[in-house]
Amino acid sequence: MIDKELKHKIDHKTKPLGALGILEDLAFQIGMVLGTASPELHLPQLVVFAADHGIALEGVSAYPQEVTRQMVLNFLAGGAAINVFCRQHGIALRIVDAGVNFDFEEGLDLIDSKTGMGTNSFLNGPAMSAKQAELCMKYGSDVVNKIADGGCNVIGFGEMGIGNTSSAAVLMSVLCDLPLVDCIGRGTGLDDEQLLKKQRILETALDNYHGNNDVSDLMAHFGGFEILQIAGAMLTAAQRGMVVMVDGFIASVAYLCAFKIDPAVKANAVFTHQSDEKGHALLLAYLSATPLLHLSLRLGEGTGCALAYPLLQSAVAFLKDMASFESAAVSQKS
Amino acid sequence: MIDKELKHKIDHKTKPLGALGILEDLAFQIGMVLGTASPELHLPQLVVFAADHGIALEGVSAYPQEVTRQMVLNFLAGGAAINVFCRQHGIALRIVDAGVNFDFEEGLDLIDSKTGMGTNSFLNGPAMSAKQAELCMKYGSDVVNKIADGGCNVIGFGEMGIGNTSSAAVLMSVLCDLPLVDCIGRGTGLDDEQLLKKQRILETALDNYHGNNDVSDLMAHFGGFEILQIAGAMLTAAQRGMVVMVDGFIASVAYLCAFKIDPAVKANAVFTHQSDEKGHALLLAYLSATPLLHLSLRLGEGTGCALAYPLLQSAVAFLKDMASFESAAVSQKS
Repeated sequence: MIDKELKHKIDHKTKPLGALGILEDLAFQIGMVLGTASPELHLPQLVVFAADHGIALEGVSAYPQEVTRQMVLNFLAGGAAINVFCRQHGIALRIVDAGVNFDFEEGLDLIDSKTGMGTNSFLNGPAMSAKQAELCMKYGSDVVNKIADGGCNVIGFGEMGIGNTSSAAVLMSVLCDLPLVDCIGRGTGLDDEQLLKKQRILETALDNYHGNNDVSDLMAHFGGFEILQIAGAMLTAAQRGMVVMVDGFIASVAYLCAFKIDPAVKANAVFTHQSDEKGHALLLAYLSATPLLHLSLRLGEGTGCALAYPLLQSAVAFLKDMASFESAAVSQKS
Repeated sequence: MIDKELKHKIDHKTKPLGALGILEDLAFQIGMVLGTASPELHLPQLVVFAADHGIALEGVSAYPQEVTRQMVLNFLAGGAAINVFCRQHGIALRIVDAGVNFDFEEGLDLIDSKTGMGTNSFLNGPAMSAKQAELCMKYGSDVVNKIADGGCNVIGFGEMGIGNTSSAAVLMSVLCDLPLVDCIGRGTGLDDEQLLKKQRILETALDNYHGNNDVSDLMAHFGGFEILQIAGAMLTAAQRGMVVMVDGFIASVAYLCAFKIDPAVKANAVFTHQSDEKGHALLLAYLSATPLLHLSLRLGEGTGCALAYPLLQSAVAFLKDMASFESAAVSQKS
């Protein structure tokens, strides 16, 4: 009944039928997720999961591994892009150490979900053990449960991890059964030669995989700690009835993992942004997802979620505050 | 020097080079328009110009002409989409009677720039006199000068006028020298048969034009009062050094008129949205314009400007508040 009520409400606002385009779909979806024709967004939250990747040491990234921890400290100091955009829109921000290769000092405002000092390189073997993969799903879930208990009903996930486009590209390739080369991009800014090297390394890694091709085995073998924790977090967020904002390439691969485990997550997912990282457009097409923004971002951190959040607010606002044809005495279509 | 200063500032923020995509271009443009590497947006303003169109009475619209005045009253009562989105983002909103076919009562919060009781139908003759066209440019300019005097430096323009996609389509066709059929869309929601009728009527109107093809003659012949007033408003806004937000199809045609009169307006123009109205994608390509949003809106009223405004704020915010590699002690690309 809520679906009919929402559709009636949207269609009787003072505008031509469908004239608010994607915002109308968004209003409908948010209403369905929150189970009401009068939805309100409460305590918006962004969680950035950071972790290191053994594969980074093979030379697949333009930046050194230490940048992961440096950026975590930058997040905590409030100086990164995601800090700026979250402050702008009143979105609470938490940072999770999902497995950075660094011992952070005590007392930082950092959620400790450390699953290791970075993954192993998956060039010749698994990035993590099955046990670690399980732990990741649990840690991601735990973080979200605590936030949901606090009353938040809209959440986005970001990531930081030098090397994580490599992990994401291989996961995308194996989970979508798409050619690896179509999934590999320039990450933080590889030149042509570096890109070829990244392709060679990841092809070798894929050749060296002899597992059972189960989703969970593939996730453990190629996954990053932050990617798996986000997958776990998304599944729990959907189970808790939250609106789940999906960011760029890495976060969309985390979503892909979650979707392969439980396709029901899709009902809750709002795709906020199409990244410029090669592979993302193809992945969104595979997922039949329509992103809200196309701003040629390739930054991660959840920045697409934060930048798109005002559009979620707009969807809820027009549903709540626009006049209807009746209330405003405006003539309808002849 | 400001260009170099801006580029240096943008490139040394803690993110891979270019990773904020279109937001970086936007930050650069806003800095250049406002003449500083530390730009701030002041007193954002949206102005909706409303007018009626004689051509509407030939049967080119899905809605009756009275909807123009009804929507003006809806704007003044705060119930339209543009009211909701302006309130959401703290954008001041003013409504201009550029020539609605209705005598509004005294005491309304309506700027009186009435240039007639709607235009004449341009099926067999000019929509307005050369004198009226001149007045429109002046009225649009006057409105903006008053707002600029108040300290505003970022302004967007919306429109309301049943029949105005017809006026805009013909103006686009003659000013861009593009086939009329490629410029005509379904407006507020014509079905296939009604669309064919609209095409026939506008083709006849174009056949009946025997003027001198000057921009000003074409504007007077096919133009709507609101379209010309917006063109005048945009030219003055650019001259006053303001950031000019360009909305959807009609507003982009007003921009096209302004651009044909003075191409310098382009430096100040931010294209906020690509409308679903047929013709807009082609017009944006003609103008080499990259819109910020693609939300399948086809509503006008300046809604694209209001919805995109947070992205302008984000561009200014990252420029101001993000840490640099140096300040955050983050390693640069190897």
